[in-house]
Amino acid sequence: MSLKVAVAGASGYAGGELLRLLSGHPEVEIGALTAGGSAGTALGLHHPHLVPLAGRTLVETSAETLAGHDVVFLALPHGQSAEIAEQLGEDVTVIDCGADFRLIEAEAWVEFYGGKHAGHWPYGLPELPGQRDKLRGANRVAVPGCYPTVSTLALLPAVQGGLVDPGQLVVVAVSGTSGAGKGPKTHLMGAEVMGSATAYGVGGVHRHTPEIEQNLGAVTDEGVSVSFTPVLAPMARGILATCSAPVTPGVSAESLRQVYEDAYGNEPFVHVLPEGQWPQTQATLGANTVQLQVTLDQRTGRAVIVAAMDNLTKGTAGAAVQCMNLAAGLDETLALPLVGVAP
Amino acid sequence: MSLKVAVAGASGYAGGELLRLLSGHPEVEIGALTAGGSAGTALGLHHPHLVPLAGRTLVETSAETLAGHDVVFLALPHGQSAEIAEQLGEDVTVIDCGADFRLIEAEAWVEFYGGKHAGHWPYGLPELPGQRDKLRGANRVAVPGCYPTVSTLALLPAVQGGLVDPGQLVVVAVSGTSGAGKGPKTHLMGAEVMGSATAYGVGGVHRHTPEIEQNLGAVTDEGVSVSFTPVLAPMARGILATCSAPVTPGVSAESLRQVYEDAYGNEPFVHVLPEGQWPQTQATLGANTVQLQVTLDQRTGRAVIVAAMDNLTKGTAGAAVQCMNLAAGLDETLALPLVGVAP
Amino acid sequence: MSLKVAVAGASGYAGGELLRLLSGHPEVEIGALTAGGSAGTALGLHHPHLVPLAGRTLVETSAETLAGHDVVFLALPHGQSAEIAEQLGEDVTVIDCGADFRLIEAEAWVEFYGGKHAGHWPYGLPELPGQRDKLRGANRVAVPGCYPTVSTLALLPAVQGGLVDPGQLVVVAVSGTSGAGKGPKTHLMGAEVMGSATAYGVGGVHRHTPEIEQNLGAVTDEGVSVSFTPVLAPMARGILATCSAPVTPGVSAESLRQVYEDAYGNEPFVHVLPEGQWPQTQATLGANTVQLQVTLDQRTGRAVIVAAMDNLTKGTAGAAVQCMNLAAGLDETLALPLVGVAP
Amino acid sequence: MSLKVAVAGASGYAGGELLRLLSGHPEVEIGALTAGGSAGTALGLHHPHLVPLAGRTLVETSAETLAGHDVVFLALPHGQSAEIAEQLGEDVTVIDCGADFRLIEAEAWVEFYGGKHAGHWPYGLPELPGQRDKLRGANRVAVPGCYPTVSTLALLPAVQGGLVDPGQLVVVAVSGTSGAGKGPKTHLMGAEVMGSATAYGVGGVHRHTPEIEQNLGAVTDEGVSVSFTPVLAPMARGILATCSAPVTPGVSAESLRQVYEDAYGNEPFVHVLPEGQWPQTQATLGANTVQLQVTLDQRTGRAVIVAAMDNLTKGTAGAAVQCMNLAAGLDETLALPLVGVAP
Repeated sequence: MSLKVAVAGASGYAGGELLRLLSGHPEVEIGALTAGGSAGTALGLHHPHLVPLAGRTLVETSAETLAGHDVVFLALPHGQSAEIAEQLGEDVTVIDCGADFRLIEAEAWVEFYGGKHAGHWPYGLPELPGQRDKLRGANRVAVPGCYPTVSTLALLPAVQGGLVDPGQLVVVAVSGTSGAGKGPKTHLMGAEVMGSATAYGVGGVHRHTPEIEQNLGAVTDEGVSVSFTPVLAPMARGILATCSAPVTPGVSAESLRQVYEDAYGNEPFVHVLPEGQWPQTQATLGANTVQLQVTLDQRTGRAVIVAAMDNLTKGTAGAAVQCMNLAAGLDETLALPLVGVAP
Repeated sequence: MSLKVAVAGASGYAGGELLRLLSGHPEVEIGALTAGGSAGTALGLHHPHLVPLAGRTLVETSAETLAGHDVVFLALPHGQSAEIAEQLGEDVTVIDCGADFRLIEAEAWVEFYGGKHAGHWPYGLPELPGQRDKLRGANRVAVPGCYPTVSTLALLPAVQGGLVDPGQLVVVAVSGTSGAGKGPKTHLMGAEVMGSATAYGVGGVHRHTPEIEQNLGAVTDEGVSVSFTPVLAPMARGILATCSAPVTPGVSAESLRQVYEDAYGNEPFVHVLPEGQWPQTQATLGANTVQLQVTLDQRTGRAVIVAAMDNLTKGTAGAAVQCMNLAAGLDETLALPLVGVAP
Repeated sequence: MSLKVAVAGASGYAGGELLRLLSGHPEVEIGALTAGGSAGTALGLHHPHLVPLAGRTLVETSAETLAGHDVVFLALPHGQSAEIAEQLGEDVTVIDCGADFRLIEAEAWVEFYGGKHAGHWPYGLPELPGQRDKLRGANRVAVPGCYPTVSTLALLPAVQGGLVDPGQLVVVAVSGTSGAGKGPKTHLMGAEVMGSATAYGVGGVHRHTPEIEQNLGAVTDEGVSVSFTPVLAPMARGILATCSAPVTPGVSAESLRQVYEDAYGNEPFVHVLPEGQWPQTQATLGANTVQLQVTLDQRTGRAVIVAAMDNLTKGTAGAAVQCMNLAAGLDETLALPLVGVAP
Repeated sequence: MSLKVAVAGASGYAGGELLRLLSGHPEVEIGALTAGGSAGTALGLHHPHLVPLAGRTLVETSAETLAGHDVVFLALPHGQSAEIAEQLGEDVTVIDCGADFRLIEAEAWVEFYGGKHAGHWPYGLPELPGQRDKLRGANRVAVPGCYPTVSTLALLPAVQGGLVDPGQLVVVAVSGTSGAGKGPKTHLMGAEVMGSATAYGVGGVHRHTPEIEQNLGAVTDEGVSVSFTPVLAPMARGILATCSAPVTPGVSAESLRQVYEDAYGNEPFVHVLPEGQWPQTQATLGANTVQLQVTLDQRTGRAVIVAAMDNLTKGTAGAAVQCMNLAAGLDETLALPLVGVAP
């Protein structure tokens, strides 16, 4: 099999990471690469690391340029996916790296994003219970946000198993700056971010908050509440999420750990580290992996789970390719690195 | 007045920062600079930034070399201060940047540090209620740990005012790597930390945990419990602490903010930022300041306070000089920068 | 004496560094702070590190807002200084941090900057032979570019003393990204610069090239030729310049070193390090210093001089304040840090 | 075919990078992983990014543990390879990432490394004229140093073509800190290197100097002299080498460029960028590539060549695998990434 794929928004960070992974995919032929303002320029100007594709020319993002492909990846600002997806037939698999089709509740969409809710597509987190089957053969996939992926995977086993109080979840996630995209902004300039850490979207206003609650709410009957704070750190890639919640009375460190090992023992991309070893983002750089560790703080009675992930790989583009593999009936792990680039 | 001061442990990071500040202090004459293994070498080899002192020679740390000074700063590994302090007379002001005399409860010392508890000295956080007066004229001062300083200042007004549940405090603090000291260790090497974030001391086992609880426990009758997780980020200096707790029913965003503005309105070094502006560590680099912001997450009912500070300045050496100023009856703010070095 | 000073372009990096230094200057009263698009906003939004000035409001840059000051610092994009300076009377001291008045030769201006040459003002590098006297009492000063300052100081003694062939100078200067200014550009975004080094302006086309040649050409009768390559490195501040040239026959390592020690022995801000110790930019961070070291490569017969400097301090704003001190008849070193902020 | 390979020194940076590449090699079975002090511990403790091998246990480095493999990679401190290699039979392919067998002249070895010269092995830079053939079927290979690889490839076409004066070569190479190895040293600590650039080994004393001269001396009859200065920059990986030399009279920018395009047009891993695009190390991160650009500085008459490379990949471990591929008669490019990980 050879899938002809197009990437819309190829000049951005998600687009570049998609092409890095797809260029090594044995069942993929790379077709149209589209962009907005950069249309007409060489891909290599924007992504000199994509050596084999450097000479390819970006074309305008449109239904016409995206037509004739088996799979279309959308790596566009939110709000642009719905219109394009409608013009692509049902026989085209559309994988949206944007936010448009992630939220089920229109109300949450309106509150956090504003404008009309476009609907929702199968959610591209195969590690959720039952989700893998829904993605097999899907022709529309909404790839999760980076923070929701790592936060959900960190908290899922404990919430699903009833080991923690889902009404008191706290997540503080340190992120590299590529997660904010490639559009030039003063507060993301090198001189601003190097040597500095800063919080943003504090107080439950970050758009990824309802997505995390949606994911965790699906595995518990209790009310879910997530206090989520993202922190920008001076690194290009990587998220380290520190998650905690009060444990249910009687839960021990051993039972907590066991639940995580059971949950992820067969997952190809989610790895519980050996006891005592804590995740570092560097170990996941460029890989489609999540590394996590769990402990019980005996003094406070809180479970603490720390998870590391590359926001552009498992957090965006790797997840998208994983979903494409499932949608197309391929081996789910094809072309997805297990090994990070460190140091 | 001119105080003759000595710095024990002058070759390390805390020692270097003390000397940076003291070299600009109008009432200070810098005397003996002592070290362990580096004794006999020039200070400039270890701290080329200390231009006016670069030619000074480090001498052995001992009661003899430290004798004859009005003030002795100890910037030594914990466990070494008690013996030296005993040999220095009561007429010498000893300001310990180490942990030895911070904890009041011997039990907590034994649990977190091991070995014999040396006792406790006046605690060098003038911003605590009533503490400023205790530091005036003191001849022994225990300078707080860096995480306790920023975490305490971030949570103090809310806990003291009864606006949050002190039994459910959560602190995740991102720190630069200088906080771990200058002794060479593999996990602190440049290639390990650049481009990577990692948690450590997770689950309530970090030694600064009981110190935070001690500080906050002093201002409330309720039980205090702090879930504290430190995270190493790729920067040399700076701590960004994200702190949260469930608010007491009826507390509004406005009342929360008011309590912080009231608490710190007259503090020279603690600044509540204008509404909507979130702290970044860069703004405090090299300054003796703490910048903080507070909000109420309406969805989760948690107060979220974010505070930024330089771990070596207000977190260690700046606090030590502030305490010296108080102890010696000088203007508390002498030689302490309000302005950070940014970008 | 108290000088009333204004800063035009206060929201940028040079403006912020000027204000950091000026806020600690005992003879300065800070007057108007002007900006372009940011006029009307609070300074603290742009420079949260400038605590004592955070509440000041930026006003429009114009002859009117700048009128009534003793000293006006211009930190504007090149091409804007001439018009404003003309409208400020001769009794106002104007110190231009931009390029407009640096080059003597109109031809060089046209080739490297384009447009009309505005003329030239006394050049603000007091360490040049005879230059200090020209700056005393000057009412117009052109502050040097950052690369020219560090490159000139690194090569000056060897060129002036005839110890090297000035026709074969090679300079490769590694710089932090703040030197490129605060205007948002994709290639200066944090994710682009962290973890990466890149050269730019290669092949003698960087605008600072003729300025370096002008400086060195003034101290030798031989033809001066500088191969200059700037390199962006992942740091906010700092320049490390590696400079080399073939030595004149008969020149020894000792004589080379002696010439540097003689040249800078009395300079307050230029420091030749002890033999064997090589400069690091961190040691000059936030200080008005240049640290340098010189050696003779016996194999190749080239003198190699390495110099470190903070591009925003001695490279821009510190030099500007140094020039103001001279122009106003104050102690040249007032309010200029000798001690860097490290680590 | 399946080659059984061992890696000696698997806990270090070169060892880790070898295993990253080898774990994706279709013709390789990974055998013994050996170490010194870390023997007995799990590989995952040292390299958490090597997920599929994390549970493997390191064994002592010895002739016994390395026996029984088709290929043995040595990633050891210099001086240890000779003894081990002697004990491995001629039927074992030994690929040494250390310096022991790189230099042909015993005199140069003694001057730069001290101790006895072990001899020299086929030099693992297939891009040198005629070298590829010498590596095919070789059972001993000396992998080049990282600086020599990038410097040689940057200067080779110009020197070999007689377009520049090889007696006046100047190389200033900015490097990430992983090149200095994983052994903990104060000057390589995160807090020391972040935010700072520093030169070292200045004045022709760095050990890689004679290796560069050896490589370039082989392609010209004229005397070769290289002024080489390495600079540490705050990044984990990557080298950016800025190389220059006076051009031979009559050489034009076009002819210079043509010589580079001709030289590397068929090389799989060396890429001349489109005119006007300058290399950045990020684009080569984790890839086995060298990206370069060349220009003629018309003012100074110097050719300037800038080259970017990952010191651990093409600079060490990638080159080693490339040599193994050649030695074993495999496709030279097997398992070697062309695509970097950026941003």
